[in-house]
Amino acid sequence: MPHNHNDVLTKYVQTFIETLLQNGVEDVVISPGSRSTPMALVFAQYPSLNLYINVDERSAGFFALGIAKAKKKPAVLLCTSGTAAANYYPAIVEARYARVPLIVLTADRPHELREVGAPQAIHQVDMYGKHVKLSIDMAVPDSSEALLHYTKGAAARGYATALKAPSGPVHFNFPFREPLVPNKISPNETKKGTKNVLLGDGRTLSPNAKDELIGLLTLKEKGIIVCGPNISERDIPYLLHFADQWGFPILADPLSQFRCGEHAKDLIIDEYDAFLRIPELRPVLQPDLVIRFGAMPVSKALTTFISSNEVDYVVIEPGEEWQDPTGRVNHMVYTSDQEFSRSILPSIKREKQWTSTWRQYNDNSKTSIDAFYDNIEWEEGKVVKTLLDVIPTDATLFVSNSMPIRDVDTFLSKTDKSLKVLANRGANGIDGVVSSALGVSTVYQRTYLLIGDLAFFHDLNGLLAAKSYDLNITIIVLNNNGGGIFSYLPQSSEEEYFEKLFGTPTDLDFSHIAALYKGHYELIDNIRDLSQCIQANNEKQGLSIIEVKTNRAVNTETHRKMWNFVSQEIKKQL
Amino acid sequence: MPHNHNDVLTKYVQTFIETLLQNGVEDVVISPGSRSTPMALVFAQYPSLNLYINVDERSAGFFALGIAKAKKKPAVLLCTSGTAAANYYPAIVEARYARVPLIVLTADRPHELREVGAPQAIHQVDMYGKHVKLSIDMAVPDSSEALLHYTKGAAARGYATALKAPSGPVHFNFPFREPLVPNKISPNETKKGTKNVLLGDGRTLSPNAKDELIGLLTLKEKGIIVCGPNISERDIPYLLHFADQWGFPILADPLSQFRCGEHAKDLIIDEYDAFLRIPELRPVLQPDLVIRFGAMPVSKALTTFISSNEVDYVVIEPGEEWQDPTGRVNHMVYTSDQEFSRSILPSIKREKQWTSTWRQYNDNSKTSIDAFYDNIEWEEGKVVKTLLDVIPTDATLFVSNSMPIRDVDTFLSKTDKSLKVLANRGANGIDGVVSSALGVSTVYQRTYLLIGDLAFFHDLNGLLAAKSYDLNITIIVLNNNGGGIFSYLPQSSEEEYFEKLFGTPTDLDFSHIAALYKGHYELIDNIRDLSQCIQANNEKQGLSIIEVKTNRAVNTETHRKMWNFVSQEIKKQL
Repeated sequence: MPHNHNDVLTKYVQTFIETLLQNGVEDVVISPGSRSTPMALVFAQYPSLNLYINVDERSAGFFALGIAKAKKKPAVLLCTSGTAAANYYPAIVEARYARVPLIVLTADRPHELREVGAPQAIHQVDMYGKHVKLSIDMAVPDSSEALLHYTKGAAARGYATALKAPSGPVHFNFPFREPLVPNKISPNETKKGTKNVLLGDGRTLSPNAKDELIGLLTLKEKGIIVCGPNISERDIPYLLHFADQWGFPILADPLSQFRCGEHAKDLIIDEYDAFLRIPELRPVLQPDLVIRFGAMPVSKALTTFISSNEVDYVVIEPGEEWQDPTGRVNHMVYTSDQEFSRSILPSIKREKQWTSTWRQYNDNSKTSIDAFYDNIEWEEGKVVKTLLDVIPTDATLFVSNSMPIRDVDTFLSKTDKSLKVLANRGANGIDGVVSSALGVSTVYQRTYLLIGDLAFFHDLNGLLAAKSYDLNITIIVLNNNGGGIFSYLPQSSEEEYFEKLFGTPTDLDFSHIAALYKGHYELIDNIRDLSQCIQANNEKQGLSIIEVKTNRAVNTETHRKMWNFVSQEIKKQL
Repeated sequence: MPHNHNDVLTKYVQTFIETLLQNGVEDVVISPGSRSTPMALVFAQYPSLNLYINVDERSAGFFALGIAKAKKKPAVLLCTSGTAAANYYPAIVEARYARVPLIVLTADRPHELREVGAPQAIHQVDMYGKHVKLSIDMAVPDSSEALLHYTKGAAARGYATALKAPSGPVHFNFPFREPLVPNKISPNETKKGTKNVLLGDGRTLSPNAKDELIGLLTLKEKGIIVCGPNISERDIPYLLHFADQWGFPILADPLSQFRCGEHAKDLIIDEYDAFLRIPELRPVLQPDLVIRFGAMPVSKALTTFISSNEVDYVVIEPGEEWQDPTGRVNHMVYTSDQEFSRSILPSIKREKQWTSTWRQYNDNSKTSIDAFYDNIEWEEGKVVKTLLDVIPTDATLFVSNSMPIRDVDTFLSKTDKSLKVLANRGANGIDGVVSSALGVSTVYQRTYLLIGDLAFFHDLNGLLAAKSYDLNITIIVLNNNGGGIFSYLPQSSEEEYFEKLFGTPTDLDFSHIAALYKGHYELIDNIRDLSQCIQANNEKQGLSIIEVKTNRAVNTETHRKMWNFVSQEIKKQL
């Protein structure tokens, strides 16, 4: 990566502009100014671009609007900082309501010159209010590679958002630090597909987009399908058929609902969080294509695996978002899961060799994990594994964030049980989990909540609803007296401050809480009692709190040993 | 009040415009349009106003900016709805950073025509973002008198905000419903003081403002001073001197800190919440002037008393706000409490007849309340009264919102104790009260919290801090099993739904909470035990929870009887 100012600036601006051009931008209207110099000079080096100069930004705005209205595709506006940007406002408002796609680029001072009385420094962040469909205050150029990926994604997203029905204006504010003159570039206007946004109307795909996608998939032999949370259960058969036809395995997140139920599960990979941690496996399983349905999966091992390879990465987005924290997505397809999986199919059904390889490592991982836990008496993973074994087939399991959802990811193996697994993965918070599970319990008869002591403490007040409305819920509190997840992170070695700042033990006796809310309460410290208690609990009504005491240090140590054991077992096969 | 459309529209627009003119507006720049017709036609009827027409709103904006820059006082801009308003943006941005006072009036569609595809209907609310000092989306004109008071206040506030250092633009968005043509008016440009904003720089007052205020006060014989929350204790001596010199009584809110301490208290009125409920007293105590220091007081009886009379109402505002929910303030003085009370003094000290009248009713109310409660065995008011009697002199009392702060208002009588009384009166919520009191307890040694059961429940989790940091606090929980304050409101007669929707009993046994957080706990049901318990508690360390069980119906009934008794006693004197 470049580190000198001019190289960094040039690369950053070129990446953004080239992605716009690769997505289809043909016209740019520039109003002269100093702060916008990096973009103006890079734009000027693309011979095929129609470049117009207009000194009055208000006129420039309406001129670009005319182009975009006639072409029905985004035109770009570029101006310098200050009132120049305010002069675009009338054209932006008109574009918003006339549904004309515009990409507005305003140059700005860097952060150290904002709100300190610098000349031409005004409030440019979100300055067009609700009149733009998207407003992004970009980063000051720097040399991080992640930023370049982000910049590509932002440009592609801006183009798609401006164009997607209803079309309209989008705004990018670019802070630039001096000196502002970029290097000469080697323009590349023709390379396609670095960030390819294929538009649907949210449901149907255009024939062109279909052809392009089928063409792309046909070239790939080692595709993997990632199914995250938020996939409709009605679409499961279509996605299974899609995977079967292409011969791609489905890496199924615990919240995808693909792991449980009576559907065929031969293509489902559920132990990836264990075996994708093994670096030696990567060459064997290296995909050339990733197709993601649903939101980001829980597994960090999976996210890292996908991000670390130069593959084509396709995301199906039924909404309006750009869900790609990896910055690696290069085909964002705005359509429904069902439309995609029903219409993007190969002409001939594929062989299964590639999926067999995946299944082999998956099966071995499962065997290794089971073997490892046969020798463990008592530990949080063992508790979760046992719970998933004995939970009734028609249960709904609400899983708290932090460690519980990770443990469920590790220990929830494919099963014909019709177990439903839910969690709050919108923002992954540990707040409100008790209340959300209680809300769920008003709808599903047998609701279980698996939660750590900190999240349970956080929403103790939520338990009043259980008492007020006589709700039926079994709450398994994994009480390791504090924040268990932090023990897995680098800060756990900061012994002097760790317990105070991260461990945060509360030393609370939750039996008082059960008494306060008139719930059943049991304190469990061995697996046999746990099994019996959960099975006995199936018949109970009302609020049941099962407090399971575990030890943070033992949990961390056992998990590490388990991953090592799996790794050794898998490596024997290589 | 007028009820026909044209009369209502005309009165509303005239009130706003006339207040602007009375405050000092001399220049208006109008860009022609339809939706702005009501304002344009009313503006045109003031012969002394300089009225300019400019068809291009961008030019109009910069033209008005030139006038305001030269005169150093606000010029007014008026345009119709739609992109017209967006054309002001460049001049508004310039005015913001050049600190030029502008009053921008944009006409808008009424709510039923917003975001439904009506022509020229755009997002005008807050459309200039952070580039205006104040942005108000005004109400659609209607015939309520409160709205006219509000309109006056808004215009005065807009003028003052635009002018106050640093000067800058303010924005009023006016939704108008058709028909848009107002009536002929009788312009009144000269009447002063309907909404008179006297500017200081936040601390000092100009000589002109001082002369005007001294002139105003000199004409008044029946002034009252209201001291609300948020007055600095350092300023108490200056305010006492001010009251003494003018011969005005001080109606002191329990959070003003005027009721407790060793300062002279002969001018302090503390029982007003009881005797201002008596309609027959109003003619006797009718003021001709109200001067308020600090925020709005707790007492609704006081607020109603002030709002119901046509008096001159002066508010001293040391910040940037416009704190007047009554809409009756007609002199907003932007200065510090100390500057006002030190510099606005009479040439000769006044007689005390007027204050004696107030004190007489105050003393009689106190005697009556005491006499009434001598015969009450057990009730929430009695509990609060007793607590205030036995609480140690150097205590800090944190008071929860809802009923506790109202009871403290009623029962906290003037005392030489140095008791400090605190509450969360920024937004008057019942959330976070336990945590705020615990925060206070890290600063003050003897902290007491008086709180109802719902507010206590709401912040139960906050108690963890008491345990984690070994904080010393005594919490008196007034447990009437639900929302006591609602019993005093009209909805309490809705028997079928009342308990479910408002009473909301939680039926919780708080001894479990004391056990959970390892606090002392006592359940009290008689006054003698309460006295002893609070006195014994002075020596205790750590968390103490004193749960006081009361009965909502008895509380409401007793309070009503008490007010009736006071009323009868007071009326005997008349």
